[in-house]
Amino acid sequence: MALIVQKFGGTSVGSIERIRNVAWRVAKWQAAGHRVVVVPSAMSGETNRLLTLAAGLQEHPDPRELDVVAATGEQVTVGLLAMALLALGVKARSYTGWQVKVLTDSAHTQARIISIDEVNLRQDLENGCVAVVAGFQGVDMDGNITTLGRGGSDTSAVALAAALGADECQIYTDVDGVYTTDPRIVPEARRLKSISFEEMIELASAGSRVLQIRSVEFAGKYKVPTRVLSSLTDPKIPVEEEARSGTLITFEEDPHMAMEKAVVSGVAAQRDEAKVTVHGVPDKPGIAYSILGPIADAGINVDVIVQNVSHDGTTDLSFTLGRADLKRAMKMLNDQVKPAIKCKEITGDDHMAKVSIVGLGMRSHAGIAAQMFRTLAEEGINIQMISTSEIKISVVIDEKYAELAVRVLHKAFELEQG
Amino acid sequence: MALIVQKFGGTSVGSIERIRNVAWRVAKWQAAGHRVVVVPSAMSGETNRLLTLAAGLQEHPDPRELDVVAATGEQVTVGLLAMALLALGVKARSYTGWQVKVLTDSAHTQARIISIDEVNLRQDLENGCVAVVAGFQGVDMDGNITTLGRGGSDTSAVALAAALGADECQIYTDVDGVYTTDPRIVPEARRLKSISFEEMIELASAGSRVLQIRSVEFAGKYKVPTRVLSSLTDPKIPVEEEARSGTLITFEEDPHMAMEKAVVSGVAAQRDEAKVTVHGVPDKPGIAYSILGPIADAGINVDVIVQNVSHDGTTDLSFTLGRADLKRAMKMLNDQVKPAIKCKEITGDDHMAKVSIVGLGMRSHAGIAAQMFRTLAEEGINIQMISTSEIKISVVIDEKYAELAVRVLHKAFELEQG
Repeated sequence: MALIVQKFGGTSVGSIERIRNVAWRVAKWQAAGHRVVVVPSAMSGETNRLLTLAAGLQEHPDPRELDVVAATGEQVTVGLLAMALLALGVKARSYTGWQVKVLTDSAHTQARIISIDEVNLRQDLENGCVAVVAGFQGVDMDGNITTLGRGGSDTSAVALAAALGADECQIYTDVDGVYTTDPRIVPEARRLKSISFEEMIELASAGSRVLQIRSVEFAGKYKVPTRVLSSLTDPKIPVEEEARSGTLITFEEDPHMAMEKAVVSGVAAQRDEAKVTVHGVPDKPGIAYSILGPIADAGINVDVIVQNVSHDGTTDLSFTLGRADLKRAMKMLNDQVKPAIKCKEITGDDHMAKVSIVGLGMRSHAGIAAQMFRTLAEEGINIQMISTSEIKISVVIDEKYAELAVRVLHKAFELEQG
Repeated sequence: MALIVQKFGGTSVGSIERIRNVAWRVAKWQAAGHRVVVVPSAMSGETNRLLTLAAGLQEHPDPRELDVVAATGEQVTVGLLAMALLALGVKARSYTGWQVKVLTDSAHTQARIISIDEVNLRQDLENGCVAVVAGFQGVDMDGNITTLGRGGSDTSAVALAAALGADECQIYTDVDGVYTTDPRIVPEARRLKSISFEEMIELASAGSRVLQIRSVEFAGKYKVPTRVLSSLTDPKIPVEEEARSGTLITFEEDPHMAMEKAVVSGVAAQRDEAKVTVHGVPDKPGIAYSILGPIADAGINVDVIVQNVSHDGTTDLSFTLGRADLKRAMKMLNDQVKPAIKCKEITGDDHMAKVSIVGLGMRSHAGIAAQMFRTLAEEGINIQMISTSEIKISVVIDEKYAELAVRVLHKAFELEQG
């Protein structure tokens, strides 16, 4: 008998019929003797509907009020899912964020969880009652409603699992696990039965959209065994079968090295990137900050940053950012930064992609980077920037080569072979 | 400088454009130096959308979970309305029921307000901030979300006005006040500038839908001056003009006698009624309870009850009820009550209407009832039941005569003349 937290995304609860399916799935786990906490997202389309209403009233909606509005999406789902469970004869009870309560900081629309009071939930579970908890939301010290930002329901589920000491956090989604790469690009892509927490983090930051990076970080911090699995299977498949499906994120040392012997676990691509290069920057202390500080102040997220060695006392600094932010960043750099630092020139390119390979095995295998670069060179793909971490190598290339790069790398590292 | 509570119904906040209009109206009162609390309903159609979702999952949705779902309608509106006010440069802050907090009993879907903690609202008002409070909802002692049932937002507004000691509670609606009767039936119907609380209560229970009876009772209990006025006028009409518009519900002694000298203030009709008669009931103590007790236990509301004098030790008892409940009531009476009390026969009629005249002046004027009965007799309208209170006379008639009865009574009591 285990304690399980199950999270269902917006598509999984997108209609009355689908909510009923989720109830079947939950009831099945409960009937098998497990104690279950369910965390549903808002019905698909609902959050966008609410944000559109808000955008009709304020160009930049007030964050506190936006949270008041947005939090209703999940509140509706928990009430409906509790009803669906009750209709099946399963004891169930819904909770909003403030009812739990999920205490967060006051950073509206992107709040972070501080603590979870799990006493009431635990009592429900002991009474054989399924606790249905609204994801994505919390309440701050002053009783204001907060939301956790994109992917917040994943974070809620993992945080609840951590607070309750759950045996497993199950993230039901519209894919059946984590793949070696996007199966839409490479049909031979293979589902991983397990993946290490570190690899999952790198894949998430490299563009894999299976899990939001914040929820993976949370899982890692509290070592919550987290499984990504499909909500599109028959809800009545046996519990034992479902328990083995999907991909388990683990916290053991090098699970792959022992289990699957792969050096590289996955290939990920991030499109819609842009690149900015500041040429001929005087190479002195503080110069990176004087360029990137104003960018950060404007709320623009920068990803890969590369600075080369200096020639004649000047250097070039390049960085990537989301394509949508390029125009604003260029204007700011030309208007404010260029006059201040006296660089030669600032150029921008808006057709970039980042392609990454990730694997714990890189730690102990030499030559992985060389193999990656050779593979790309053989296809005539020019590498414009390189960035590495202990278990990841990312290259920034022209976006038109992104899919080709993923395919040849997947093949080069033999990821299709289990 | 006054403290005003303004309530806006679902139609008044039914779109982004209309929410913006409400914001203009509120901002105008604020700019004129008044302190304003606004209580909006859910956007029109929203509550029905939510109830339909719930009905898709449980035939009789769990009341606690239904409240969780239904309360989101008003939560969305308070957030949006606060944004609309902020967009106009007006300081504003939204509150859900639990944030205020509005403490209620635990009777889900029809909870009653126990107390309101108005401290935070008062502080907002003192800081020049408009408080936007979700109507219709509260929270019970155990932190469960509750709703107040039909017309609950009116009740919320009046209760807030009472708690804050507001100078006036303004109920904005899609009619521009209380009329001598329904203007769709009698085009000559006249708007009343004021009406006494007692008359308003009787009109509400007689079928006038301008205000829910519970909110009027609340206004009466705490003597809250309450004005019914239109949300369809230009939101920018001068405050002085708007302050005199609509109908004011007053608590003075006989305001009409002094101000308008009318004996009868209004005529109301309630359709969709049904009548049940239990014939040949043994006339002994406890017999009314043995008939109406089971009806009440089944949650069926009974309106007019009439029992005639006894003949030969038996009597007839008749009562009216909502048409939708007739079938269920008849089955229960025939199956359970008839064998127990040994009456002769039970008959039901599902085409009834109740027509009432209301007026404080009846207290001091004789012959009003006689004049009503003569007027109806002259049109050949048969009266099936009569029920009177100190300031109201109701007759139950065949539904097909309801509009005719309203028209002739409106004319007979010269209500078209101000």
